[in-house]
Amino acid sequence: MRVLIAGVDGYLGWPLALHLRARGHEVAGIDAYFRRDWVAEMGSQSASPIRRMSERMAAFGEHFGTSLVFRRGDLRDYGVVKNMVRAFRPDAIVHLGEMPSAPYSMVDVDHCVYTQTNNIVGTLNILFAMRDECPEAHLVKLGTMGEYGTPNVDIPEGSFDIEYRGRKDRLPFPRQAGSWYHQTKVHDTNNVTMACRIWGLRSTDIMQGVVYGTRIDEMADDERLVTRFDFDQSFGTAINRFCAQAVVGLPLTPYGKGHQRRGFLPLRDSMQCLTLALENPPPPGEYRVFNQFEDVYDITELALAVQRAARNLGLEVEVRNMVNPRLEAEEHYYNPDHRRLLDLGYRPSGDMAAELRTMLADLLRWRGRIQSHVHALAPDIRWSGSREKCGYLP
Amino acid sequence: MRVLIAGVDGYLGWPLALHLRARGHEVAGIDAYFRRDWVAEMGSQSASPIRRMSERMAAFGEHFGTSLVFRRGDLRDYGVVKNMVRAFRPDAIVHLGEMPSAPYSMVDVDHCVYTQTNNIVGTLNILFAMRDECPEAHLVKLGTMGEYGTPNVDIPEGSFDIEYRGRKDRLPFPRQAGSWYHQTKVHDTNNVTMACRIWGLRSTDIMQGVVYGTRIDEMADDERLVTRFDFDQSFGTAINRFCAQAVVGLPLTPYGKGHQRRGFLPLRDSMQCLTLALENPPPPGEYRVFNQFEDVYDITELALAVQRAARNLGLEVEVRNMVNPRLEAEEHYYNPDHRRLLDLGYRPSGDMAAELRTMLADLLRWRGRIQSHVHALAPDIRWSGSREKCGYLP
Repeated sequence: MRVLIAGVDGYLGWPLALHLRARGHEVAGIDAYFRRDWVAEMGSQSASPIRRMSERMAAFGEHFGTSLVFRRGDLRDYGVVKNMVRAFRPDAIVHLGEMPSAPYSMVDVDHCVYTQTNNIVGTLNILFAMRDECPEAHLVKLGTMGEYGTPNVDIPEGSFDIEYRGRKDRLPFPRQAGSWYHQTKVHDTNNVTMACRIWGLRSTDIMQGVVYGTRIDEMADDERLVTRFDFDQSFGTAINRFCAQAVVGLPLTPYGKGHQRRGFLPLRDSMQCLTLALENPPPPGEYRVFNQFEDVYDITELALAVQRAARNLGLEVEVRNMVNPRLEAEEHYYNPDHRRLLDLGYRPSGDMAAELRTMLADLLRWRGRIQSHVHALAPDIRWSGSREKCGYLP
Repeated sequence: MRVLIAGVDGYLGWPLALHLRARGHEVAGIDAYFRRDWVAEMGSQSASPIRRMSERMAAFGEHFGTSLVFRRGDLRDYGVVKNMVRAFRPDAIVHLGEMPSAPYSMVDVDHCVYTQTNNIVGTLNILFAMRDECPEAHLVKLGTMGEYGTPNVDIPEGSFDIEYRGRKDRLPFPRQAGSWYHQTKVHDTNNVTMACRIWGLRSTDIMQGVVYGTRIDEMADDERLVTRFDFDQSFGTAINRFCAQAVVGLPLTPYGKGHQRRGFLPLRDSMQCLTLALENPPPPGEYRVFNQFEDVYDITELALAVQRAARNLGLEVEVRNMVNPRLEAEEHYYNPDHRRLLDLGYRPSGDMAAELRTMLADLLRWRGRIQSHVHALAPDIRWSGSREKCGYLP
């Protein structure tokens, strides 16, 4: 299969290129390196010493015997997208090329508008390029479990059968996102759904839980093949933050009461799921949704799991709750379905403790890179709009 | 009350300024005149001979003894929005300043991207300006009944109580819009809902049916006060198209089978409803939705009503169905609620025949302006992406 990865320089895009190539697929990538800029703007850097794309491509060629087809380009430019699609003629496009941070989108009006236009326009350009150049191709797009928010009912995979006032229909499940970034994924969901309906495109939209981990097997201990690992307040997830805090000896900081519940899965399982979606495309015209995660954890449970894994490596850290810079439910019902990927053959690797051990061991090697940017861990981007460092809760 | 109207040069914005001023409110407006440009781009013009803003403002001043506070400006520019809000200090902002045409948004990728960015960014800028400059103000925003699409169940006003797998919640009603333009209203709905939740802003989002009519009482037969009336394939609604066709002797053209059902209301009732929303604001933090229309008609019924009204004026026209350039359900269930405005005191004027008579009489005076742009009535913007004139159905 010929797979074009938009956002191939990112946390998921890079390992996906390795993983798909190892399975024999032809891979092309496009990226404008914006993620590197955004993280620098947050005063941080990847904990892992990721290489320039030229070095990454050289290592890719050495390992797999074929080069990665790569173009530097901005998805907001329709000519760039159309020409890339026309030249590579993909069977599938994996769209990972969006601005993925909730706090970054909440900084101010400029960051909000940038996030929404960047994400929406990139996706629209891909949809039009597909319609005009490769209408049979399969769009695998990254949504987020955060699109659904935290309703007081079960969360189905994308749509649900309802009965309302005695009549029945199958309708999209209501979305209630909690940041300007998360809203862009809802906007995408609506736009992509319509493109499938009116143009007969096919798409799998992956409502992804929080992905964690520093490696997949295909990286083969070659540090030139490592993927990025962000820990700053904007681009690091809670689990990344806890791991980074553990290796530099800082308290692990759940926000607020710390009983937010989210779905998680390791990086290697994310690769497995994306590959299953790619290798089992839906029929033309179908907009298909997968909820992609393995287990649901309460954020405090997660902090305690990181604390235990750190202790096993001789690192003693405490858990201290911090003022929540976000406005979100800190205690809520959470029971999302995640059946479809399992039905396609997803086998969860299932050992979070082992994965955390690997992550912490990797991060210990890169400890200096975290230590030198440790200020970036402290949150001050508040959903209220103020910019004030959050302190510990009493 | 101090009311800022974004899009004051438009079909609804201009009469709303007159109507609110006549009720004693202080009115300011902002507009970039884009609607005039878009209609010109479609090769058309307003059937009514609308005046330049300077003439409109002079007439406004003569009639009401006070001038309209007006700034020319683009809502995509945050500085423009913030400065206007800071200077005028509105109690309410009525946001009518969006690109409102489904066909225009479907022309090509550029028109799609323009529509989505224009509409989304304008609304985001207004939300941030409210947060920072007038957090107590009330945002009255125009959505569209088209956000809901045509589900096989009743359509509530914005949100609904559901039971799903034995648990209950009140959730946003699912949106299934049918054009890139209609999607922007869904995106706005999601963005505004979040702003109310996280910042405590208050908003009334009006899911408006199709508004028709050429006049309100406050225009007082002064042609300098007339509002625009578009009939081209993009900016004219079905009812405008039928009326324009009737006065130039062309067949009235329902698209496809012609059994699409939509809610309609006359311009004077739209003014009444917007005023009710403004004079009865929700509490801070509430995102309130009104479905605003009076009666539901099947498009063919509507064509027959226009045919009858035309006959009474001595105009004989036939009804001929035309190839549908859109992809939409042409026969469907449709039963939307519209209780809340009635509960607030909305008294529908209720005489479509009389309103059609007035419209046709006005349009007969402006017949030459339609005749000279009659080609703009013929649809060729197809949802499929092709650009081919639609013929009559056999």
